[in-house]
Amino acid sequence: MSQSLMQPLAYLEEHYDRFQEELIELLRIPSISHDLTYKEDMDKAANWLADKLRSLGINKVEIFPTPGHSIVYGEWLNGGVSAPTVLIYGHYDVQSPEPLEDWKSPPFDPGIRDKNLYARGASDMKGQTMAAVNAVEAILKTENFPINIKFLIEGEEEIGSKHLNDFLVQHREKLACDFSLNTDAGGMPDAGTPSICYSLRGGAVFLLQIFGPSQDVHSGEYGGVVQNPIHVLSKLITDLHDDYGHITLAGFYDKVRKIEDEERAELARLPFDDVFLRKHSGVPALWGEPEYTPAERIGARPTMDVVQFEAGQPKSAIPAKATARVSFRLVPDQDPADVDKQFRQYLEIHMPPTVRWDLEFRGGGRGIITDRKAPEVLAMKDALQTAFGKDPIFQRVGGGIGAVLMLKQTLGIDSVLTGFSLYDDNFHGPNEKLHLPTWKKGMAALVYFFHNLMNK
Amino acid sequence: MSQSLMQPLAYLEEHYDRFQEELIELLRIPSISHDLTYKEDMDKAANWLADKLRSLGINKVEIFPTPGHSIVYGEWLNGGVSAPTVLIYGHYDVQSPEPLEDWKSPPFDPGIRDKNLYARGASDMKGQTMAAVNAVEAILKTENFPINIKFLIEGEEEIGSKHLNDFLVQHREKLACDFSLNTDAGGMPDAGTPSICYSLRGGAVFLLQIFGPSQDVHSGEYGGVVQNPIHVLSKLITDLHDDYGHITLAGFYDKVRKIEDEERAELARLPFDDVFLRKHSGVPALWGEPEYTPAERIGARPTMDVVQFEAGQPKSAIPAKATARVSFRLVPDQDPADVDKQFRQYLEIHMPPTVRWDLEFRGGGRGIITDRKAPEVLAMKDALQTAFGKDPIFQRVGGGIGAVLMLKQTLGIDSVLTGFSLYDDNFHGPNEKLHLPTWKKGMAALVYFFHNLMNK
Repeated sequence: MSQSLMQPLAYLEEHYDRFQEELIELLRIPSISHDLTYKEDMDKAANWLADKLRSLGINKVEIFPTPGHSIVYGEWLNGGVSAPTVLIYGHYDVQSPEPLEDWKSPPFDPGIRDKNLYARGASDMKGQTMAAVNAVEAILKTENFPINIKFLIEGEEEIGSKHLNDFLVQHREKLACDFSLNTDAGGMPDAGTPSICYSLRGGAVFLLQIFGPSQDVHSGEYGGVVQNPIHVLSKLITDLHDDYGHITLAGFYDKVRKIEDEERAELARLPFDDVFLRKHSGVPALWGEPEYTPAERIGARPTMDVVQFEAGQPKSAIPAKATARVSFRLVPDQDPADVDKQFRQYLEIHMPPTVRWDLEFRGGGRGIITDRKAPEVLAMKDALQTAFGKDPIFQRVGGGIGAVLMLKQTLGIDSVLTGFSLYDDNFHGPNEKLHLPTWKKGMAALVYFFHNLMNK
Repeated sequence: MSQSLMQPLAYLEEHYDRFQEELIELLRIPSISHDLTYKEDMDKAANWLADKLRSLGINKVEIFPTPGHSIVYGEWLNGGVSAPTVLIYGHYDVQSPEPLEDWKSPPFDPGIRDKNLYARGASDMKGQTMAAVNAVEAILKTENFPINIKFLIEGEEEIGSKHLNDFLVQHREKLACDFSLNTDAGGMPDAGTPSICYSLRGGAVFLLQIFGPSQDVHSGEYGGVVQNPIHVLSKLITDLHDDYGHITLAGFYDKVRKIEDEERAELARLPFDDVFLRKHSGVPALWGEPEYTPAERIGARPTMDVVQFEAGQPKSAIPAKATARVSFRLVPDQDPADVDKQFRQYLEIHMPPTVRWDLEFRGGGRGIITDRKAPEVLAMKDALQTAFGKDPIFQRVGGGIGAVLMLKQTLGIDSVLTGFSLYDDNFHGPNEKLHLPTWKKGMAALVYFFHNLMNK
């Protein structure tokens, strides 16, 4: 181990307790981007991060307002003109914590139990963001750093990174870099197995509304003559799948990229088998396309899920409307615009004459797939191997990260995707947690990563 | 017209403005039985009615507490030992007014527009209750009344008359009577056409819960391997009907009484045709069993409606559970206990292995059908003919009235069922209204009715 590598690693060790305290401080701020009543907390979190970056010696830190939540930007360009430039991405917003009654400790009052830190945002991704910040601090404080660093930390990841793309367009030159490091693509299958993500699913989200009677009507008076919008919506949802879990939209699978044999072999290394997934989800049996393995279905196959169905009241009435929030997960090379057309066509054909309806496209993006042999990816592979003592798994991740897509499409920037969240960290659910020993190893891995880049 | 009949009719005329003011006073009390935050208002409404009954000269008025909302009871037994005794039923509770934004004027700030009084409870059934109270007042204040009167006004009709049956059992002797008059069975097809109801649908209400993952899980991470409880519930709901609107539970129709030819002819008098029902409900097309007319489907055929479907959040997660409130409307001679068994059996057969589930029977009752030739029914028929100048329609009503069933089953008491609400009064929906000219004629009809009883 080189002298210079020992110093930042020792620094991490020495300052670990403070890092943990600081993370807890950040986690106490309920920065829920979805709910505007938390606007002040969003600003508080942004300011907290800006102050934090300044404290490392990041010499240009700015908070950029957007029509939504602010973006925290910081840069340290003392690496030199010929040094590589890494754009470190993060987000400080979190999902809403409902249902609150399912949390064992309050979501914004972090608690440590059994080496896990429980709080909303612990894993997704305040913990991940701070891992990168802390790794940079350890290097900046202990050695010469022949790499230029830019931080881009947004506040709208959980609501679709609504204003990020405009920001990228406006600040194209400021954001110029060799690649982006994104630690939001976690999901390590277990604490011993690091991972690199090389593909993300995209998505297409819709709001489907079915309108029946002009207002709620008594189910005694109208039951038998007025078709219930809940029943109509239920049938439309049901018929979107065949009996084998395939989506029935005409043309839906036309552009789905076939899974290569080499990928199938790599995906087979993932421990996402029946037992693992049942244990982590709590379902009595899995479901899905029988001709694909669970890991393939999660990473490499498109899906459709109704994430919300809202209709009616606890009273004896046929409701005036029924609403579903429909979320498609898309894979390369599907196009959300195609899915919009296909979904509309399906509804036009299948809608009964008893109702009126409206479909609103609420946003989406293509899936991405990146080069597993790019030099920065190999630098990360090596760093993870060193920190965890095990070759990382190359995986396709089922979620999507709008920022990764936008950086690629708008600025042509590729992302190195990793993260130190565990598969059972309950992001978006109650009892979100961060496994602290893994988090600590993750910080070390990022120090190795920067060193691998220096030595190139 | 006999001298004595002229006096109460003149009294009604003379005091009409006061009656209207008093009804508005009662309607200002938000006596929502469903929501315990309105408990004080419930008590206020009960006290208001008790005071009102005392003011007519009803000499024994009591408020009986129940484990839920109180029952207002009053009796006037000066008609004589050999005189008939009529138990007048009413309820002072109302449905919750949500969604509030659909009301043109606030639900508890009554407003008169175009001869209609708009308020929650105006038609169902504070207006109907007060019609009977006012008719009794008009007679008691102007003439000798050779009929004994008992008032039974409950506060839990809209939540299934939960504590009424216990009250009936406890006060069996106090409640002894020849028959009950119930003006909660309204739904006049139009302001010119009175109606008598001779059959009510019963019901069976269930809460069906589908449990998927042990908590909400990220739809990117688990989409494709965890079956969504919303999808499971949607399919179960969908498969409860065949393509012709028939319910698919095995044995469901076994005990459904055939509609007699004479009834079909009477039901055909109802103006509930395609145009009428589309106009009043606002749907673009009707729905239901094609071999029955709309009026038959509403009154004489059983139905199933999911009145509430609740699941998920506006976030990208597969929810841990999905819940449906399922309401069957039953007709003679179906038994809710049979439907409970049939529904459970259906779920056992159709439930996929990917979920857990729970079905809770939330209450129900059999439908009823009464003698169209009973003397009190003929007295009402004649009274309505006199007041409205038109023979009443004998109809089967699609809703159910627990009190009618309990009086019959527990005390053997038959009910004369009528009412002065119009079919488009929006009970249970926003903008509930009472057509005031019809209400006024209704009071006169009740005066005629009591006179017909006297003259028997």
